[in-house]
Amino acid sequence: MDIEEALERGEIALYKLDELLGSSVKATEVRRRFLERRLGKDLSALRSDLPFDQIVGRNCENTIGAVSIPVGVAGPIKVEGTYARGEYYVPLATTEGALVASVNRGCAAVREAGGASVAVISDAMTRAPVFETPSVGHSVELAGWVKREQERLKEAFSETTRHGEVLDLKPFVVGRYLFLRIEARTGDAMGMNMVTRGAERVAEKIVEANPWARHIALSGNLCTDKKAAAINWILGRGKTVTAETTIPRRIVEERLKTTPEEMEKVAVTKFYLGSARAGVLGGFNAHAANVITAIFLATGQDPAQVVESSFCLTMVEALEEGVYLSVTLPSLELGTVGGGTWLPAQRAALELMGVAGPGNPVGTNALRMAEIVAATVLAGEVSLVAALAAHHLVRAHMRLGRGWGSKG
Amino acid sequence: MDIEEALERGEIALYKLDELLGSSVKATEVRRRFLERRLGKDLSALRSDLPFDQIVGRNCENTIGAVSIPVGVAGPIKVEGTYARGEYYVPLATTEGALVASVNRGCAAVREAGGASVAVISDAMTRAPVFETPSVGHSVELAGWVKREQERLKEAFSETTRHGEVLDLKPFVVGRYLFLRIEARTGDAMGMNMVTRGAERVAEKIVEANPWARHIALSGNLCTDKKAAAINWILGRGKTVTAETTIPRRIVEERLKTTPEEMEKVAVTKFYLGSARAGVLGGFNAHAANVITAIFLATGQDPAQVVESSFCLTMVEALEEGVYLSVTLPSLELGTVGGGTWLPAQRAALELMGVAGPGNPVGTNALRMAEIVAATVLAGEVSLVAALAAHHLVRAHMRLGRGWGSKG
Amino acid sequence: MDIEEALERGEIALYKLDELLGSSVKATEVRRRFLERRLGKDLSALRSDLPFDQIVGRNCENTIGAVSIPVGVAGPIKVEGTYARGEYYVPLATTEGALVASVNRGCAAVREAGGASVAVISDAMTRAPVFETPSVGHSVELAGWVKREQERLKEAFSETTRHGEVLDLKPFVVGRYLFLRIEARTGDAMGMNMVTRGAERVAEKIVEANPWARHIALSGNLCTDKKAAAINWILGRGKTVTAETTIPRRIVEERLKTTPEEMEKVAVTKFYLGSARAGVLGGFNAHAANVITAIFLATGQDPAQVVESSFCLTMVEALEEGVYLSVTLPSLELGTVGGGTWLPAQRAALELMGVAGPGNPVGTNALRMAEIVAATVLAGEVSLVAALAAHHLVRAHMRLGRGWGSKG
Amino acid sequence: MDIEEALERGEIALYKLDELLGSSVKATEVRRRFLERRLGKDLSALRSDLPFDQIVGRNCENTIGAVSIPVGVAGPIKVEGTYARGEYYVPLATTEGALVASVNRGCAAVREAGGASVAVISDAMTRAPVFETPSVGHSVELAGWVKREQERLKEAFSETTRHGEVLDLKPFVVGRYLFLRIEARTGDAMGMNMVTRGAERVAEKIVEANPWARHIALSGNLCTDKKAAAINWILGRGKTVTAETTIPRRIVEERLKTTPEEMEKVAVTKFYLGSARAGVLGGFNAHAANVITAIFLATGQDPAQVVESSFCLTMVEALEEGVYLSVTLPSLELGTVGGGTWLPAQRAALELMGVAGPGNPVGTNALRMAEIVAATVLAGEVSLVAALAAHHLVRAHMRLGRGWGSKG
Repeated sequence: MDIEEALERGEIALYKLDELLGSSVKATEVRRRFLERRLGKDLSALRSDLPFDQIVGRNCENTIGAVSIPVGVAGPIKVEGTYARGEYYVPLATTEGALVASVNRGCAAVREAGGASVAVISDAMTRAPVFETPSVGHSVELAGWVKREQERLKEAFSETTRHGEVLDLKPFVVGRYLFLRIEARTGDAMGMNMVTRGAERVAEKIVEANPWARHIALSGNLCTDKKAAAINWILGRGKTVTAETTIPRRIVEERLKTTPEEMEKVAVTKFYLGSARAGVLGGFNAHAANVITAIFLATGQDPAQVVESSFCLTMVEALEEGVYLSVTLPSLELGTVGGGTWLPAQRAALELMGVAGPGNPVGTNALRMAEIVAATVLAGEVSLVAALAAHHLVRAHMRLGRGWGSKG
Repeated sequence: MDIEEALERGEIALYKLDELLGSSVKATEVRRRFLERRLGKDLSALRSDLPFDQIVGRNCENTIGAVSIPVGVAGPIKVEGTYARGEYYVPLATTEGALVASVNRGCAAVREAGGASVAVISDAMTRAPVFETPSVGHSVELAGWVKREQERLKEAFSETTRHGEVLDLKPFVVGRYLFLRIEARTGDAMGMNMVTRGAERVAEKIVEANPWARHIALSGNLCTDKKAAAINWILGRGKTVTAETTIPRRIVEERLKTTPEEMEKVAVTKFYLGSARAGVLGGFNAHAANVITAIFLATGQDPAQVVESSFCLTMVEALEEGVYLSVTLPSLELGTVGGGTWLPAQRAALELMGVAGPGNPVGTNALRMAEIVAATVLAGEVSLVAALAAHHLVRAHMRLGRGWGSKG
Repeated sequence: MDIEEALERGEIALYKLDELLGSSVKATEVRRRFLERRLGKDLSALRSDLPFDQIVGRNCENTIGAVSIPVGVAGPIKVEGTYARGEYYVPLATTEGALVASVNRGCAAVREAGGASVAVISDAMTRAPVFETPSVGHSVELAGWVKREQERLKEAFSETTRHGEVLDLKPFVVGRYLFLRIEARTGDAMGMNMVTRGAERVAEKIVEANPWARHIALSGNLCTDKKAAAINWILGRGKTVTAETTIPRRIVEERLKTTPEEMEKVAVTKFYLGSARAGVLGGFNAHAANVITAIFLATGQDPAQVVESSFCLTMVEALEEGVYLSVTLPSLELGTVGGGTWLPAQRAALELMGVAGPGNPVGTNALRMAEIVAATVLAGEVSLVAALAAHHLVRAHMRLGRGWGSKG
Repeated sequence: MDIEEALERGEIALYKLDELLGSSVKATEVRRRFLERRLGKDLSALRSDLPFDQIVGRNCENTIGAVSIPVGVAGPIKVEGTYARGEYYVPLATTEGALVASVNRGCAAVREAGGASVAVISDAMTRAPVFETPSVGHSVELAGWVKREQERLKEAFSETTRHGEVLDLKPFVVGRYLFLRIEARTGDAMGMNMVTRGAERVAEKIVEANPWARHIALSGNLCTDKKAAAINWILGRGKTVTAETTIPRRIVEERLKTTPEEMEKVAVTKFYLGSARAGVLGGFNAHAANVITAIFLATGQDPAQVVESSFCLTMVEALEEGVYLSVTLPSLELGTVGGGTWLPAQRAALELMGVAGPGNPVGTNALRMAEIVAATVLAGEVSLVAALAAHHLVRAHMRLGRGWGSKG
């Protein structure tokens, strides 16, 4: 075939194939076969019947196939929230043995305890363009201008989106630079693209009216996206959610094989002393990141946002009647539309949770999902804290994670 | 079928199915069909021909299928490292439109510039059990005992593994508590399970010889796993790697459509002023997390470890001859064996990079992979910094990420 | 004397002397003499003619004398701010050789450059009481109640003070706990006591109206006082101030013996690479803490607040015409009334700066002082960055700080 | 007088007076009088009989007088350490009403409880010069060279000091930059000047032998001095100390008017939930900074180092027999010689503590002082946690801190 020969001779680039072949499905195959020949390796396991014609130009480029990640189900988790009320099954895509089993065990304990109470405290996606001005005086003036003209800027933002709406514009002056943290409601979408587009329009308006201001970058890292940033931990990004449960003493003892006092002991030692001594930012928990990652992967979220979405403060208190646990997640970034949520299996996983597609009213599906996620993180904490308290961690891993590196 | 009826009646738990049916492949189907009936949803898109009989008991439980994530290829990236020398194709599993294209563009720029110089600075996985002792005096005594008996403890650790080897035992005293950060080489495995098993043996020896010490938890969060922790940023976890390149001025101008000075300007404003003002821990970069996540997913790593693996300090300097960039990643946790690396597509993705399976000598495949990853992160930074400098970010997203939430 | 004998016999406590002797001046002497006899040491150097009768019950208890700290003068610094306009002498109380000389040199450079432009971005002291509620639902309800009733709560606060005024009430929900960050303007006082009193009243009102809420502590460490906290770095505490100057190239070369490019190089390497790698919170500068501490001590501020008041982001940019520097201090806590500002020498130091006592209108003296402090920090940065750039640091210390520990 | 006239006419600079007058005592007077005339203010309260001829050229320049800070005494505190064994009076220089009384109350509680157990975990002052090299390869090579040649570098350091001794040389590679954290024992001196001099010699040796390395700055902020840096929190700087006590239940109830359970409740809420939520670095305590600052000022330490010296992790546990508290301070920087310790009153304050001047053997006085300081911080925590638990905070401030800003 001409194209394959041209590839071999280096006359055409791999990323041109979609256009040349008029089909990303074909391009995916040709590209993979080319790499197989070039490297002398069998890459057939990457073969996939994903709809690459829809994927390319939207979710991925230069495609060569796909990887599959096994999905387990935990739950149902019983949730008493504002948007989620009832029992929900939770899909977890993971290759870490014991994780699904552990979360499932936690869900059962929470369920027996009557469920998790959950509340969304705030909801805003952010983008923070940065401007250079001639002087401190100008940057202060610009901050004032933004505040005075905020209605105009909010409208400009709204012209770029159906569902987005600016909630606040927070200026941060650093010498002659101005960072503008735009906080917006983004409906059922996680909202990064929406806010980025809106931010560009806002930035244009700002520079138009203040021509001495120079727009340096659409993201000045004060957003902050995919980095562990105190600004997200303090002010929140995406959904800020908190969940709690009280597990009766009997259930702790019979199901979890430990006591409220032992669980509190482990929590104080590990989350307070340990995390504090380790200089943790937002990592005062047992394994929130595991649960968040597994749900994010199953449901087509952006898994790089696990960095801040896994910020979690877990509290464990021994009470007379049992053990009280709460989790607080200030920066949970997720959506039920956009990104990878439309992919067939990911969409099915959202269906399983009962939150696929746009909510009615708009935004409620993402809020519901945030509540279920927080409750599931709580269940994960219940289970791991209890397991540590019962000194079971390694044995659980040994039994379920027979893999490489072990002698046995 | 009896089992399905029993499921409906709630007489058997979903997680019992593997055992009852004697097949996880069957259990996966039965479980999914049960959920479909229970919820009245079509979950068939989760169907997968993954080898669930091997997956369950190792990587996942309570399986109902799998999700597929599209994989694009970037590169080749040219690497001049100690273990990786030459050109490497890099698999990226992602649903974020524009990412693969952007990294690919960066790889081309780095390649034209002669490649990326890379070095692994250190290599150690960690686990930090925590002990309670009767008093400060005892915890100090225990810290001293550990230091004196370190050879004995290293041997105890080695009994649990073929490839692991303790490099250091770092005690941290907090009042009457002692956290012991065990640092170990773990061959080609990422090594968490290996170190966890070894840590349990070490903990047993400690408590045997110092019976007044109580082992509270195998992980006291000073490890620190899957949380943004300064201890990893400072001391490193997994591989500490640094990579650099100098892109000639001509390439910056012609290929990247900007200038070294503009790139430095964006970098200083965004990485220094912005990240500093945002109170970032380890997030002095453009989008390291995107690249790390996509490679981790493609190659069967633990994606929850992106939290610390994406720690990255990027430097950009305008020189007369072009633009110098470096990335420093202190906490890159990955392996070429263990975890999800054996899954068929993930294994193929490792083959594509030329690092599948155990290295020869042991450990060199993981080290080679770390070098390739660092070089690819560098390429991603080159591309995004250049794009921001050229004010192209949104437009790139608009063109490639036509998705939900946009009006157009 | 009976009392001295009773002291010897341990029949009366040292802290009872003020009352027993009816004079804190006498009590100070008796107490010190008692310690001299008890310890067999000469403590006469602590003798002081400070007005202990006014000090005890206000600034110190159990007094035995005083320590003197030498005060040097730097400047004048030329300031172009909103409140401070003109040239100001700056008192620095320090025992660190070379500091005053260095700041003085920086002031001269700034003065020759035409002065420092300064702006106060925000102004609010904070206190954050914490409440326990029965459940997440209650804590969310309480957060809503506070928002709805904020006018009432602001009035309650105002009843406790003439000059304080609540600007915002920011609730933070953590499970069933609610932290309420009260932000208030406090006139010319630093304002901690004022806000603490107001916070107590607010807390009373909250508990009265929501009797299921339990007031755990008046400060829940979300204030945050005298600790390095991201919340202050992000949201500000006390005054948020920024200052800038551009030193012409000729002055950099002739007076500072270096170049704009060398200064930028040192700054990027030290403030960006170094501070970032060190995991700094708010410490992106050369030695802001030195300058802040010395002014705080000279003027009767609370020097323990240097912890957050020294948060500073310094930027250095080489331009064609010279070198641009800015400093941004988000958390500068100071006052011209209250605390130790009334002590004779401290009051004189405030007079020297032209900011003693209450401003007219109220608050302007503290704002003026904040502007002068920021400008002086800027001068200190100019000088030290230049010195480092010229490799002069050690030699300067050697010449001016001949002290203990050196061989020569 | 000619000189005064020349000053008026701006013909001579203020800082030239010491030399022109041949006396810093006279220069101090002339300078202050000049400022009085220039500003039309009475600055006589700054007048001081400090030995300015010895101070100038060592601790301060451009002197105009001094400020006095009242000193109260707390204690005795009973310490069971390695170097400090027995009862010690503690001098506190402060203008914050209620502080001395509060610490004194804590000392009494600790004393009645049998004292504080204290241990110094490590002891090293640090300086971190930074080098630029041509490439990543060179910086890695340099890191290796430093490790191989460490004995030679240690000797070079030792040539610059009698008492200093390098303990470790820790290289940190960031692209083509190398930061070298030099850790040294510095006897009874706090040691910054000592380590700075030694670091300069080490840097010279490095550049001599590796001429392609360029020494950018003697401090690359990885030291880290006077900034809140995770590297100090993790690795320690100065003394790392921990102290503990168990206050019997009876004393808690009778003297502190609260219960172990209430104290634990306050501590968990404030130190764990509050500090964690505030994004604190090293600030997991009640008011360590207050105690550290007051002792530092009384004894001639460098008060700008309170920034990191006040890092403190306080733990509070309710036990059956009472309440257990510990404090852990990883970065306590102090000395009994050098800096301001020789000033008359400061020296007397050190005498009061029993730690003036060099220890025998060398270093033991500073170690003893560190133990006493840690025990006193513990006492301060006991008292404030108890006061919060008993809701006494504001009332205590109201009674003792009658000052500005209040209505009454």
